[in-house]
Amino acid sequence: MQALKERILRDGVVKPGNVLKVDSFLNHQMDVMLFDEMGAEFYRRFAQENITKILTVEASGIGIACMAARHFGVPVVFAKKTQTSNLDPEVYEAPVHSFTHNKDYKVRVSKKYLSAEDRVLLIDDFLANGEALRGLSSIVEQAGATLCGAGIAVEKGFQDGGKQLRESGMRVESLAIIESMDDNKIVFA
Amino acid sequence: MQALKERILRDGVVKPGNVLKVDSFLNHQMDVMLFDEMGAEFYRRFAQENITKILTVEASGIGIACMAARHFGVPVVFAKKTQTSNLDPEVYEAPVHSFTHNKDYKVRVSKKYLSAEDRVLLIDDFLANGEALRGLSSIVEQAGATLCGAGIAVEKGFQDGGKQLRESGMRVESLAIIESMDDNKIVFA
Repeated sequence: MQALKERILRDGVVKPGNVLKVDSFLNHQMDVMLFDEMGAEFYRRFAQENITKILTVEASGIGIACMAARHFGVPVVFAKKTQTSNLDPEVYEAPVHSFTHNKDYKVRVSKKYLSAEDRVLLIDDFLANGEALRGLSSIVEQAGATLCGAGIAVEKGFQDGGKQLRESGMRVESLAIIESMDDNKIVFA
Repeated sequence: MQALKERILRDGVVKPGNVLKVDSFLNHQMDVMLFDEMGAEFYRRFAQENITKILTVEASGIGIACMAARHFGVPVVFAKKTQTSNLDPEVYEAPVHSFTHNKDYKVRVSKKYLSAEDRVLLIDDFLANGEALRGLSSIVEQAGATLCGAGIAVEKGFQDGGKQLRESGMRVESLAIIESMDDNKIVFA
């Protein structure tokens, strides 16, 4: 998606350790007008799938998921990373390892909000190792729902997540796939 | 706002300890079409304020803030509750006490994303004791930005937050103010 790629080239900052900072428009400050265009593009790609629910994970997936959901006309469910007191006791949960923050956590979704009738689209801001998508995918499977695919804003194509998930049969649609970002030069696939 | 009040009456669940569970449409599963109507209503109320930025706090404020921001045509910044490795070292921060989860935390916003030129609208899902809004308000003040007010989905009018904040001079607009919810009967102000 051209608008997103141009924005990454303009405002993205490459940091040591293959970190791409896009917090000026994607995951701290959020350009919702860009998100709206991204949402329209996700809808264009998944319109045939009769999606009934969008599933994401807190916190930085929520904005993109909501803006996309308006185009689909469906609710968003966001998986929680902490066992808060107002989360139902009956949850689907799956372990996730975060390489960015080097820790393990669980993602949880109340059993009330995913069922066997749902056709689910996963949405997230980043795809690198694929850990978050695997966790969300496990939750969809536990619910007996149909996983229709994943819509990702930025995929680090030089890491293994996208390749592994596609080989496992998941349809993964990334709006910008970064092939390399050596020497501060971002190259898209 | 009638649509939100009707939804609270239909789907809200009162739990012991003055807890109102609205996770079927507001803060776990999110009805983005309702959020879109709420965003339009916030815009109607604050359209004269020339808002340049919406500030919220992760995680459950993000969806409402993004859907509102589309109506204003401005970016959202969400304050982070954890010091993640990809947050800038230069931040505004403020302490917040969560009565819901009985713990203290800090909210942080990178100094890059709020400036003295900004006219800021705070958005959050709930207002009870007002702790989160006070934290966000402090961040706006530290940035030298102009605080134009706060847009809230559900205010617990029987707790002190809203009263205190309004007395302090903050314009607080809540779409549904709950006067009481004794014996499972929700009464709006």
